[in-house]
Amino acid sequence: MAIHRPKGTNDLLPPGSPKLSPLTSAAAHVWLTETARRVLERAGAQRIDTPIFEEADLVKRGVGDSTDIVRKEMFTVYYFGDHGGFILRPEGTAGIVRAYLQNGLKQLPAPLKLWTSGPLFRAENVQKGRYRQFHQVDYEVLGSSDPLVDAEAIALMVDVVRELGLKEVRVKLGSIGDPEDREAYNAYLRKLFTAHHDRLSDDSRDRLTRNPMRILDSKSEGDQDLIAELSVKPMLDFLGEEARAHFEAVQGYLKDWGVPYDLDPSIVRGLDYYRRTAWELHHEGVGAKSALGGGGRYDGLAEILGGQATPGIGWAFGVERLLLALEAEGVEPPQTEGPLLYVVALDEANVPHAAKIAMDVRRVARTEFAYRALKPGGAFKDAERRGVCWIALLGSQEIGNGTLSLKNLSSGEQRVINVSELSAFLEDQLSHFTPSPLQPISPQESP
Amino acid sequence: MAIHRPKGTNDLLPPGSPKLSPLTSAAAHVWLTETARRVLERAGAQRIDTPIFEEADLVKRGVGDSTDIVRKEMFTVYYFGDHGGFILRPEGTAGIVRAYLQNGLKQLPAPLKLWTSGPLFRAENVQKGRYRQFHQVDYEVLGSSDPLVDAEAIALMVDVVRELGLKEVRVKLGSIGDPEDREAYNAYLRKLFTAHHDRLSDDSRDRLTRNPMRILDSKSEGDQDLIAELSVKPMLDFLGEEARAHFEAVQGYLKDWGVPYDLDPSIVRGLDYYRRTAWELHHEGVGAKSALGGGGRYDGLAEILGGQATPGIGWAFGVERLLLALEAEGVEPPQTEGPLLYVVALDEANVPHAAKIAMDVRRVARTEFAYRALKPGGAFKDAERRGVCWIALLGSQEIGNGTLSLKNLSSGEQRVINVSELSAFLEDQLSHFTPSPLQPISPQESP
Repeated sequence: MAIHRPKGTNDLLPPGSPKLSPLTSAAAHVWLTETARRVLERAGAQRIDTPIFEEADLVKRGVGDSTDIVRKEMFTVYYFGDHGGFILRPEGTAGIVRAYLQNGLKQLPAPLKLWTSGPLFRAENVQKGRYRQFHQVDYEVLGSSDPLVDAEAIALMVDVVRELGLKEVRVKLGSIGDPEDREAYNAYLRKLFTAHHDRLSDDSRDRLTRNPMRILDSKSEGDQDLIAELSVKPMLDFLGEEARAHFEAVQGYLKDWGVPYDLDPSIVRGLDYYRRTAWELHHEGVGAKSALGGGGRYDGLAEILGGQATPGIGWAFGVERLLLALEAEGVEPPQTEGPLLYVVALDEANVPHAAKIAMDVRRVARTEFAYRALKPGGAFKDAERRGVCWIALLGSQEIGNGTLSLKNLSSGEQRVINVSELSAFLEDQLSHFTPSPLQPISPQESP
Repeated sequence: MAIHRPKGTNDLLPPGSPKLSPLTSAAAHVWLTETARRVLERAGAQRIDTPIFEEADLVKRGVGDSTDIVRKEMFTVYYFGDHGGFILRPEGTAGIVRAYLQNGLKQLPAPLKLWTSGPLFRAENVQKGRYRQFHQVDYEVLGSSDPLVDAEAIALMVDVVRELGLKEVRVKLGSIGDPEDREAYNAYLRKLFTAHHDRLSDDSRDRLTRNPMRILDSKSEGDQDLIAELSVKPMLDFLGEEARAHFEAVQGYLKDWGVPYDLDPSIVRGLDYYRRTAWELHHEGVGAKSALGGGGRYDGLAEILGGQATPGIGWAFGVERLLLALEAEGVEPPQTEGPLLYVVALDEANVPHAAKIAMDVRRVARTEFAYRALKPGGAFKDAERRGVCWIALLGSQEIGNGTLSLKNLSSGEQRVINVSELSAFLEDQLSHFTPSPLQPISPQESP
């Protein structure tokens, strides 16, 4: 019986694959990640990579014991039967902060801007845009609580999606204040909801003692009806003086730079180590839960992981969700090019010659050869299917006099050149090309 | 207590990190993988990615139930407590062949050349160059048994390591023939070793019935002494007519293209689906077990995975092992560049101006700014630490008249330009730059 990939995972496929979609195109994933890399590295972010699996305790502390992620969606990893109990990483921040602490990255110039991309894992119910192995681009800044860092992080997240060509994105911005502000807010919420204890869902009654703010996040309709009836004051009303000044400074920069945002007083974060700025990036194209990603300040995280107090802020967006948003807006990743040259022998005895010619010029440009002799008609058909730019048909005559007859499949132009000139010819051709995924950003493309 | 990464895993770190080595440099990994990408994509290979975890059965069939990998080194993955029993992929080939079959890639032009790179997992004893999460670059060709494909695969593997700058590599080449050849060889071995049954290790007695060829691979000294005493004939002596002709054709191409190799009659492969060409790439710099990687033809694999018979061949090398070999030869990955421009405000009130100027030109080149005001002396010191090319110091006077005073930290050159000209100035500077990791291959660099 044929074996299939695990539920909730995707294969990323080459161009022309029968089951190809933007979501499953390896080239689309590369393009998206490379675009993010360009934008982030030009802003001074440095690449970091952390292991695919980590200590369970890191994830429990970093994501929070009471979250759905930890309670229901963990992939656990064992070896030699029952050693380990590691966790496939469900998000990127905890691992990066752990790596910052463990590798003494505090010694690098601060604030240290880091970025990464790669697979993450949550055993969720699979639906469109939600997979058990999914991918994120992740940006983290460690070592500064300056509001300028917050504003820059938000601006960079917007820059990345704009550079990809996405237009209809909205930043929903809030602040969850400092721990004492949250305490005051929780006290207010506890008092407010205790009076309506009977109407709360079981989960929310639980939250009433431990963390009343998480009631606002409840998925229960009854809870949400109650929240609407009570006209619950938002967290923003409870910001202390310092948190408010910080939040205003962040907004000041965003306005100054022309980064559009909407205030969203309803943004909450359930975990203690989150502080102040929190935001989400939304897009209508990805459905009801329209977040492409989100970010926030987590000044308390390093200490929870057993390290020295280190302010931090970061964001991540889901690659699959961004690809869906791009599809909804009709933005297509750049086409993968076919080979610049395709060398075809007209009889079997000359196939090794065709191979040799192709291999000799591969260091200049993408060049392929036919592994068996083809007739001219078949060769052209095959070349078209492969997206070839120039085709060279190789007969005994050409081999005898050391020439090549080239034909351009799109313009129809024909050329006869010496084999010794082929490399120079291809270099010249290449200078008219724009291999899009890895080009530097040109000012014209920019928002 | 501080949490550490799991044993046998690495963090890949930014430049300047205190614990940096070639093995743990994110930039070195990117450079190596990008170099392989360039070489392979110019030969027509297309990117594919398969999930990090797969059905246990895929790995058992693809790698072989009786191998150490399956018996001792598997990481198993569970979710919701005890569902799953997936495996973190210990190698790349089985997943790629599974993806080829499941996604109908047979419909693409054949032979289909695929490549991938990424993390793999084996719960081995950790030692230098052997990690529990390690990384490979992997090349696979499906849909052809032509010896030209085998020779090209070997040549490409050599091209990649040479493009990286590695010189002292040796290809050790063998053939394990067709299944009937192996049967004949196993019959010969069974007869030979049965006469010395008492001297064999327990493991090898086991192999005597199931797969005598694997005795030759034995790690027991006694077994190896016996093998030496008996002057065991190599597999190569048992090749049938077709396998021999195929092997000779492969060697003919390699000689024709100037790809150096040594015949290694001792190369064996324990699994049934391996056929004909098999090789290893060795380097003295990585220690006793000097293989950087290996490859082979596996025409029987697709059927074992439940699909239609599909000839295939591929290779993989270990990124960490290659980085060790490069270090041994003194080859250094290209230096990561610092920012082209660093904008520093001389008083706190002008920091937002510095930020704005930097952000405006980031789409042209890597530009950073200081998040707080610095004095000129401190600014220069900081800029040097960051590997800055040009520094701009911003005082109230400059802001008043819309100019920037620039200084080149290496040449000492000074320039005063209008802020409105900054973008054009940086573009011009950039044209003198060679951002090495992502450049096209220039013919001069090539072997």
